[in-house]
Amino acid sequence: MVVFNMNVLLVDKKDRLPQGQYLIDKKNDFNHLIDVLKVKLGSKVLVGELNGKMGFLSVIEISETSLKLAGTFDIDPPRALPIKLIIALPRPKMLKRILRSISMLGVKEIYLINTSKVEKSFWYSKTLEKYEKYLLQGLSQSKDTIIPKLYIKKRFKPFVEDELSSIIKDTIALLAHPNKETPFPYRPKKNLTLAIGPEGGFSEYEVEKLEEIGFKTVHCGERILRMETAVISLLSQHYNFIHSI
Amino acid sequence: MVVFNMNVLLVDKKDRLPQGQYLIDKKNDFNHLIDVLKVKLGSKVLVGELNGKMGFLSVIEISETSLKLAGTFDIDPPRALPIKLIIALPRPKMLKRILRSISMLGVKEIYLINTSKVEKSFWYSKTLEKYEKYLLQGLSQSKDTIIPKLYIKKRFKPFVEDELSSIIKDTIALLAHPNKETPFPYRPKKNLTLAIGPEGGFSEYEVEKLEEIGFKTVHCGERILRMETAVISLLSQHYNFIHSI
Repeated sequence: MVVFNMNVLLVDKKDRLPQGQYLIDKKNDFNHLIDVLKVKLGSKVLVGELNGKMGFLSVIEISETSLKLAGTFDIDPPRALPIKLIIALPRPKMLKRILRSISMLGVKEIYLINTSKVEKSFWYSKTLEKYEKYLLQGLSQSKDTIIPKLYIKKRFKPFVEDELSSIIKDTIALLAHPNKETPFPYRPKKNLTLAIGPEGGFSEYEVEKLEEIGFKTVHCGERILRMETAVISLLSQHYNFIHSI
Repeated sequence: MVVFNMNVLLVDKKDRLPQGQYLIDKKNDFNHLIDVLKVKLGSKVLVGELNGKMGFLSVIEISETSLKLAGTFDIDPPRALPIKLIIALPRPKMLKRILRSISMLGVKEIYLINTSKVEKSFWYSKTLEKYEKYLLQGLSQSKDTIIPKLYIKKRFKPFVEDELSSIIKDTIALLAHPNKETPFPYRPKKNLTLAIGPEGGFSEYEVEKLEEIGFKTVHCGERILRMETAVISLLSQHYNFIHSI
């Protein structure tokens, strides 16, 4: 069962052959191309160079164990979502899905932070170690090539006091928190920094620290959403806007 | 591990005792209340009567195997999302998450339909049989009590030809489909009916049939989203709007 769609085959520029060709073998996605996408000699495959352009390449050679692709990379990846995302590290299973979703939606700057309600064990998960894999799956699904930058910030106070002020500079910094009066703004014109707490929320101390450096606390409607749904939901309130004009 | 948050304890009116009290035992959520929420004599618990109101009830009796709750149901559930949702039946694992999400977001009318790209086996899954369980989990997470109505429509053509026209009456009927020119509208004022295809999309025939009865085909941005992300994303473009004014 294919768990994730490969709408673009991602390749690394360092594997580029002369004339911009690529050899795809069993180490990367040869089996998927043959078994699922059923490519043949002459088939066109959408290929994207990581952190570069995409192009429809042709299969020009094919063997039992590999195939060769040739063509031109002339398609720009889709626009990024101009939102910096700061989220309390979720449990591993949820982290996996959140990483895929935010990468899919075009977020390019992610901070995974610690808060008092983040369980210590979450910091030692295999999922966190392999975070890039899930970000790449999101790109591959959404036809994007630009790898999001992900920063792991295990200490809340020094991160907020020493680093966060310059991260939120020139953005509207919002903190999603239930039971506050101010609603989430209606498609603001400026870039956003969005902070989303763990299940159970930020503590009052954490809210205060964030407000001190310039975050505005907003609520997100009458419903309490799961973190993974809240993330997609809040990002999406900007998504259509950006991609339609 | 608690997989889902219980932000409201849902009870069935037919279990109501005289004076509007409720007995909670091991059949329903007694263990969760004791072990996770750590309720004691005198604790207040948010309880919601299915398809009714909610209220903070007090624990007035507690034993080894059950507890009794008493109080007044005086809180209205949150507003419903005025969107009818028509989705191609997804694979069981995704169905589970989609049912929770759409229930959480306040959708109250759901049609699970067949299309040419829906795998036959999906219709025989345990998840589909137990769909109400996942809808209730979504309600319990988002503090809602109104059970969504879910309709299973295994035959595409008769459903579209005989039933769908009256379902979409007085709504804007949109069909999410990649590669179309018209973008998803910017928070339209009227209620929506939204049709979302399977992984791989609706077939051209299916698109034509839906357009024939009045659906407008719109795209959802440059990115190809997974179905479960697309559903949350498209619904959320209306979510904040409705709950902030």
